[in-house]
Amino acid sequence: MTTTSGEFALLDETWSSVTPPAARRMLIAAAAAFSVRGYHATTTRDIAAQAGMSPAAVYIHYRSKEELLFQISRIGHATSLSVLTGVSEVDPVERLAAAVRAFASWHAEYHTTARVVQYELSALTPEHLAEVVELRRRIEAAVRDMITEGVRAGVFDVPDVRGATLAVLSLCIDVARWYQPSGRRTPTEIGDLYADLVLRMVGTPT
Amino acid sequence: MTTTSGEFALLDETWSSVTPPAARRMLIAAAAAFSVRGYHATTTRDIAAQAGMSPAAVYIHYRSKEELLFQISRIGHATSLSVLTGVSEVDPVERLAAAVRAFASWHAEYHTTARVVQYELSALTPEHLAEVVELRRRIEAAVRDMITEGVRAGVFDVPDVRGATLAVLSLCIDVARWYQPSGRRTPTEIGDLYADLVLRMVGTPT
Repeated sequence: MTTTSGEFALLDETWSSVTPPAARRMLIAAAAAFSVRGYHATTTRDIAAQAGMSPAAVYIHYRSKEELLFQISRIGHATSLSVLTGVSEVDPVERLAAAVRAFASWHAEYHTTARVVQYELSALTPEHLAEVVELRRRIEAAVRDMITEGVRAGVFDVPDVRGATLAVLSLCIDVARWYQPSGRRTPTEIGDLYADLVLRMVGTPT
Repeated sequence: MTTTSGEFALLDETWSSVTPPAARRMLIAAAAAFSVRGYHATTTRDIAAQAGMSPAAVYIHYRSKEELLFQISRIGHATSLSVLTGVSEVDPVERLAAAVRAFASWHAEYHTTARVVQYELSALTPEHLAEVVELRRRIEAAVRDMITEGVRAGVFDVPDVRGATLAVLSLCIDVARWYQPSGRRTPTEIGDLYADLVLRMVGTPT
């Protein structure tokens, strides 16, 4: 795995919603640990050590290791949803381009968090998974609505809206897998590239 | 994780190259176990139990757990490379479409193997990783050559060949993450959808 310090050192909106600071520090430590060794190979003791706290301190803030994963997953999904829907553009072409630009570059910038969020879904309890699945449904609906809007406006040509939605989301999410901070493209450049490719996918001449 | 029995029950070309049968059975058991709990949380004891063998039997065929991961990764990458380059079409448009169709549907059909292959790279030794990286370089070169050929023939319009190559590969590989055998699309249908979307990405009217 790539080094996670850069990403987790950012005191950004994602994690600042978690209070008190000790609970936030633990969540950040858990996300880093899960991303390196996987959820099942990480113990609450590992997480406490990484956060510079005692193993017992974990249980003051979280019921279990799974609760930590759930909070990372819930916050990660909610943040990526707000990134996707937070675009201000009204024109369907510009709106989809802006949403893809934001969503793809978020997955580069927060690649370690995004990996944990995407690859460890099967470790969630059924109740927690249901809550995350509802956020995923809203993410999917947001992209589908943007594509549908462009089709209605006559500016997109999409024979299979569900299929295109799936591909757009998949393309952006997979940035988290291959992105490396040392690579040739910055998160912003990836966002620009992907906005262009997605507009081509939906049949808009660029 | 989804159930793995269907995929691993297939006595296909991927695993039939592994001999003797006991070594093959162990590799299949290891891929299944890694896909469910992750590489670091899986022990050689778990793998032996899943293969119906004694823990000591693992070491007759493999030096270590990492050797098992390496063989899965090597064979997985080599197979996906041969799937990608095994297309017989000569026309650049048809060739890229056929390659994407084959590569994307392979990642659906063999999603559990592909997940292990893609998500556990960081657990390989530097020597083994170098060998896998060389296969990845060849996979990337194969797609880049196909796109370059279409640009040269004047049938593709691609401002950023490297960027398009990255996106095509990413789109197909990420099928392994989201594909579910119980989902609405078969591997063949996913291949067809993606061939169409990729031709749009490279600027070919479909």
